Amino acid sequence: MTETRYGLQVKLSIPFEQALEKTSAALKGEGFGVLTSIDVKETLKQKLDAEFRRYVILGACNPPLAHKALSTDLEVGLLLPCNVVVYEDTPDTSIVTAVAPIAMLAAAGGGQDLDEVAREADTRLRRVMASLEG
Amino acid sequence: MTETRYGLQVKLSIPFEQALEKTSAALKGEGFGVLTSIDVKETLKQKLDAEFRRYVILGACNPPLAHKALSTDLEVGLLLPCNVVVYEDTPDTSIVTAVAPIAMLAAAGGGQDLDEVAREADTRLRRVMASLEG
Repeated sequence: MTETRYGLQVKLSIPFEQALEKTSAALKGEGFGVLTSIDVKETLKQKLDAEFRRYVILGACNPPLAHKALSTDLEVGLLLPCNVVVYEDTPDTSIVTAVAPIAMLAAAGGGQDLDEVAREADTRLRRVMASLEG
Repeated sequence: MTETRYGLQVKLSIPFEQALEKTSAALKGEGFGVLTSIDVKETLKQKLDAEFRRYVILGACNPPLAHKALSTDLEVGLLLPCNVVVYEDTPDTSIVTAVAPIAMLAAAGGGQDLDEVAREADTRLRRVMASLEG
């Protein structure tokens, strides 16, 4: 697992479709449902007739953590859900990148009152990423 | 319009449903389609049987800007789409908050190569918010 400018990244030696399934399953294992899924390749083709690699943005949400965060700070919805990006690297390899909630909250100037819930989300997303590598 | 910890905020003297419609229309006027819409009240009720105010997280995307950003930096998908939150304040008033792309990109440690596209998205979202107040 490597830390990137925006989050955590792993490279998987499996094709895109498998990586997408594996990522959704790993998220579920840590209590994150996939609330939204944006097919970037399809969207850019439809809207702009532009070609792009296979690339999906998943919006992952752990309901108890989201509820706690929103009950503490109504504005935190701007940082939700937690984005997890899956894209094709080569036909046989894929890249998965997830936001790191602690870093994102700190960067956005979030309050200390959200520290605990951000730490919990961060820990869980790191476990998701570690399990993908395993 | 006020600047908040995470973005830009306006308070509207219209009920929630009207605010939601007006916000979607204003986004469209600046080239942002609503790619995702999360009904937070409904989701928390379904998943946790918890009560929450009417609160929706819109994922707004301007396809040409998104394409330019992703072509410059594949990892920027973690910051897309641009979140715009609409929630009930009182039965007659609503709050709309949008991310400020320049601040968000800077906070996330984004590269200067994305400055131009972030500035363009930021300018457009500020016009959306200003039009809601008008």
